[in-house]
Amino acid sequence: MRNRMIQLSQNEIPRQWYNIVADFPNPPEPVLHPGTGKPVGPDDLKPLFPMALIEQEVSTQRFIPIPEEVLDALTLWRPTPLFRAYNLEKALGTQSKIYYKYEGVSPAGSHKPNTAVAQAYYNKKEGIKKLTTETGAGQWGSALSLAGSLFGLDIKVFMVKVSYEQKPYRRLLMETWGGNVTPSPSTETEAGRKVLEKDPNSTGSLGIAISEAVEVAAMNPDTNYSLGSVLNHVLLHQTIIGEEARLQMEMAGDYPDVIIASCGGGSNFAGISFPFLRDKFHGRDMRVIAVEPTACPTLTKGKYAYDFGDTVGLTPLVKMYTLGHNFVPAGIHAGGLRYHGDSALVSQLYHEGQIEAMALEQRDIFEGAVLFARHEGIVPAPESAHSVQAAILEAKKADEEGKSKTILFNLSGHGHFDLAAYEQFFKGEIQDSTLKEEELSKFLAELPPVAM
Amino acid sequence: MRNRMIQLSQNEIPRQWYNIVADFPNPPEPVLHPGTGKPVGPDDLKPLFPMALIEQEVSTQRFIPIPEEVLDALTLWRPTPLFRAYNLEKALGTQSKIYYKYEGVSPAGSHKPNTAVAQAYYNKKEGIKKLTTETGAGQWGSALSLAGSLFGLDIKVFMVKVSYEQKPYRRLLMETWGGNVTPSPSTETEAGRKVLEKDPNSTGSLGIAISEAVEVAAMNPDTNYSLGSVLNHVLLHQTIIGEEARLQMEMAGDYPDVIIASCGGGSNFAGISFPFLRDKFHGRDMRVIAVEPTACPTLTKGKYAYDFGDTVGLTPLVKMYTLGHNFVPAGIHAGGLRYHGDSALVSQLYHEGQIEAMALEQRDIFEGAVLFARHEGIVPAPESAHSVQAAILEAKKADEEGKSKTILFNLSGHGHFDLAAYEQFFKGEIQDSTLKEEELSKFLAELPPVAM
Repeated sequence: MRNRMIQLSQNEIPRQWYNIVADFPNPPEPVLHPGTGKPVGPDDLKPLFPMALIEQEVSTQRFIPIPEEVLDALTLWRPTPLFRAYNLEKALGTQSKIYYKYEGVSPAGSHKPNTAVAQAYYNKKEGIKKLTTETGAGQWGSALSLAGSLFGLDIKVFMVKVSYEQKPYRRLLMETWGGNVTPSPSTETEAGRKVLEKDPNSTGSLGIAISEAVEVAAMNPDTNYSLGSVLNHVLLHQTIIGEEARLQMEMAGDYPDVIIASCGGGSNFAGISFPFLRDKFHGRDMRVIAVEPTACPTLTKGKYAYDFGDTVGLTPLVKMYTLGHNFVPAGIHAGGLRYHGDSALVSQLYHEGQIEAMALEQRDIFEGAVLFARHEGIVPAPESAHSVQAAILEAKKADEEGKSKTILFNLSGHGHFDLAAYEQFFKGEIQDSTLKEEELSKFLAELPPVAM
Repeated sequence: MRNRMIQLSQNEIPRQWYNIVADFPNPPEPVLHPGTGKPVGPDDLKPLFPMALIEQEVSTQRFIPIPEEVLDALTLWRPTPLFRAYNLEKALGTQSKIYYKYEGVSPAGSHKPNTAVAQAYYNKKEGIKKLTTETGAGQWGSALSLAGSLFGLDIKVFMVKVSYEQKPYRRLLMETWGGNVTPSPSTETEAGRKVLEKDPNSTGSLGIAISEAVEVAAMNPDTNYSLGSVLNHVLLHQTIIGEEARLQMEMAGDYPDVIIASCGGGSNFAGISFPFLRDKFHGRDMRVIAVEPTACPTLTKGKYAYDFGDTVGLTPLVKMYTLGHNFVPAGIHAGGLRYHGDSALVSQLYHEGQIEAMALEQRDIFEGAVLFARHEGIVPAPESAHSVQAAILEAKKADEEGKSKTILFNLSGHGHFDLAAYEQFFKGEIQDSTLKEEELSKFLAELPPVAM
């Protein structure tokens, strides 16, 4: 019998997060205050975040210990398994070895709870009673609702209206964990009202929902804001994925030539790849590929520039690959990975040539997903299907070149709440949602003028 | 850090199933031919099952080796974790220790694939091209669809019409794995047409769907029938759950005083409990509790008598606890566990006083499920919530008696496809669906006359 599942025991779980900034070839670009254009300091962030997370946001310490209470919550589902995809390899007839780390075993079904429990813990410790956040497809909102129920915090989720209406099960999952879900744009905030005034039928966007969540947190002293991706501390918390995967690849007696992960805001990508990238910084030969939808091609088509994190312009300005803070993916785009920008750290790595990026069309990712499901069993989330399909393409390319590669990808979540999109795919209703150049130019023209 | 998750490595996976018949205090009651009333032989079963499974059905061999190919498929998700429910214990303030085995990590989200892959393998090996089956909530149909995709068999699922209409996601899951799903009663079979003639608006039942699936298999030589519970070989395949749990409890340095599992047809219950029951047969003190809904109280209110496995009367007669083969649970019953009978082996164990049974009202099981979700993370399937709530009640009872018990229950699956029922619960729309005595008498009056 072949061992497909490489599993750590719970006492082998990594006790520290890896902070890639310590090994960054160049120092990270500063984050700017939206009013003054000057680098933001801790005081600017205090209305939204607890001090512990603000410190992590700017830390240059290489390894940061995971608090006992956070580890205790993580052990509800961690360590997660690493699988050798023998069946997929056979179906492809490839010479390459394909491994995947599976984060769908968390109660929320994705990697998102890794940071949610850490953020809930630090906020609780500093006396916060309530967290606000936004969610698109609902992955992040459910992760934070779970964390809120574990640490005794109220959770208020602004859910992009189109998803709120089309994905009732995700909302129900949040409610089962006690989360309070409001469709965005809402009339509860100035930001929401502003959008509804312009467009009463707005179906929302992540950018708008962020504006609403930030506004509520900024106005209430016992309320903080929580973000599910993009920020340095979020990426930091996700590195437990790659730290585990390093140990598991070692158990398998292997090391990846190619690491692949889907990339929206960047936390899933950072989670699996950052712990390996430190070897690359020290000279190890490897390719690291971020995969995004052609409907939201931030790295492959975006501009590396300062932009707001939200639509209304409440957040600091971040140097990142962006499609413009007013960007909203086409309505026919089925999956997640819809954020207009990318994490500053991931953006800088891409800009400096340390990582690659690839954009995939949505019909292709469903083809990869169905092939994967029928051979490996697990039905991938559409977001995760990007990394599945990219791994398939990399294996095929290696075969064409007569090479055998060791490919590792992160299967960030299952698709149990996304089967309506699979149905559209089977019915041939999934259309090409590739972003058009003229659309892109329009959004990029709206980038804020920044004097740097 | 406390170890909550007790995980075997893949090379520790049990290589054999445990056949409880070898240790049965009394020989099992014979299964009778529906026409002759005489015990059935292998020839009677050949139109429906491969010889290997017929042999397992009547085997008295204590341990039966798991074929390599089946083990290889099982390792797509096994071994499954055993958890110590520290958070639930704390929430209850109990002196008892609560462990749960979690079968929801399988791609189909329940324990059902354990037997599905074994049945698919044996059928494929004997040249069968297609399997028919029935499904209620969809757990079994998705498990068999998964197995079909892994072993290259066509799968035809007759899905109880009310579930087909109310649970589109389960159907989509089956279709993602290539399964062909037909709402039952259908016009494709004599059995279905007969039911529709009497009641054109019939929303179906498991018993009717079984009749349809059996008929199609009996009529086509390259097609066999596959059952997800009840039969001895199905229970046998599920014993891998308890065999793993024995090793895991040993790793935890513990042994259960009380073993709890929800019980519909009996395969989930048998899976976790049979491997431990052999210690009871050899004198070990333990309690083993089967939990069922008050809406379908086969063990607690049914009659121990010979009855058909299906509605139309195509299957052999089995001595079991039954509510009558025409029984259908109240429409307001939200969860699964709807079968009118129980496995012959489980029934006999109950009749002989080796195991206990308990019936729970559906609002109570959702209370237990929500408490569990908010502390342990995982959202249980309504079926599995029966064992959650029973474990909570047992822990409370032990506290009242001033005792500390070690309780083990099987969390057979997650509730990702059952969140509509959670919504009903939160809205207060889940009603008492307890079976009324006068209803029961009506169904029991229709038991077949058997001369034994």
